[in-house]
Amino acid sequence: MTIEYATAHRRASHIPAEAGTPYFIEKGDGDRAHLFGDLITIYAGGEQTENAFNFFTVEGPKGNLIPAHVHADTYEVFYVTAGAVRLFVEDLHGNQQEKLLTPGDFGFVPKNCPHAYRMERHHSQVVGVAAGPGGTFERFFETLGAPTDQHGLPRDAFVPAPEKFATVPQQYDVRFLRDHQWKTG
Amino acid sequence: MTIEYATAHRRASHIPAEAGTPYFIEKGDGDRAHLFGDLITIYAGGEQTENAFNFFTVEGPKGNLIPAHVHADTYEVFYVTAGAVRLFVEDLHGNQQEKLLTPGDFGFVPKNCPHAYRMERHHSQVVGVAAGPGGTFERFFETLGAPTDQHGLPRDAFVPAPEKFATVPQQYDVRFLRDHQWKTG
Repeated sequence: MTIEYATAHRRASHIPAEAGTPYFIEKGDGDRAHLFGDLITIYAGGEQTENAFNFFTVEGPKGNLIPAHVHADTYEVFYVTAGAVRLFVEDLHGNQQEKLLTPGDFGFVPKNCPHAYRMERHHSQVVGVAAGPGGTFERFFETLGAPTDQHGLPRDAFVPAPEKFATVPQQYDVRFLRDHQWKTG
Repeated sequence: MTIEYATAHRRASHIPAEAGTPYFIEKGDGDRAHLFGDLITIYAGGEQTENAFNFFTVEGPKGNLIPAHVHADTYEVFYVTAGAVRLFVEDLHGNQQEKLLTPGDFGFVPKNCPHAYRMERHHSQVVGVAAGPGGTFERFFETLGAPTDQHGLPRDAFVPAPEKFATVPQQYDVRFLRDHQWKTG
């Protein structure tokens, strides 16, 4: 049985429009978006949880570096379910760490801690939760990138228009750190 | 590199005692507990997220029925990463659904929706997030069950003393529905 709903985010979504409704979503059928070479799939967001938390996956090819960034009000989980993902994180005192995460491994990034990551195997997948007292920010990916009905990775990388970088990240509690350097390597 | 911390919950935990600290936990090395035949592993809790959310896994053998229960203030994610798990859920109007979830499938249970589940393959694993505006309740499992340093499923099922059922669930926003019946089968 597959139910699709018209929502604020999609003409046809498996996430119910009405909060308080239980639901199931089969693998890959969440709200999907492309951003650069990655596929982001949202399974639950703030509208489902009274803004307590969200739940999404990020899938990507090997070599896709996500630049250093920071969230002022958002805690973030990285839980790897396929492939290998190298997570870089800096604590509030400036101490840096990196670790290669393989399936079942977990990384936690508190608010205000600069971080970055790189998929180090093809077909890597990370489960993410990104939320804090100020809410959840799962629609960042499709607002900077582009919603899609396709399954699978983008055939061609989706590169946002430059002007979007000036406005979208700050609306979703993302601040890129252009000159940040990792000294952990 | 492995760092262990003394915390309020464990003499040696991979979850830092001090909030705001980034951390990594390798597969299986979170705070572990046994409850009946299951192994519950906490990777993050309310103390890490200003009570926004938690992140844990539940692993179990085939056939382990978790009785119907409900949370007044907690939204719950079931994301299957191994095996197969049948999730039963009833909406706020009394309509019941069930679905067999296999790896990559997702189920969402809003607050006040009765639900139950059963592992239908050995070595099943569910990733869980259970939180709401009132907080997070990840220590339910070890308070009703028992903390453990072991990896892997309990050798013998851990059965809580009967009197614990009278006090522990209500402290963690769990209410068991003893006479609940599923008519979906």
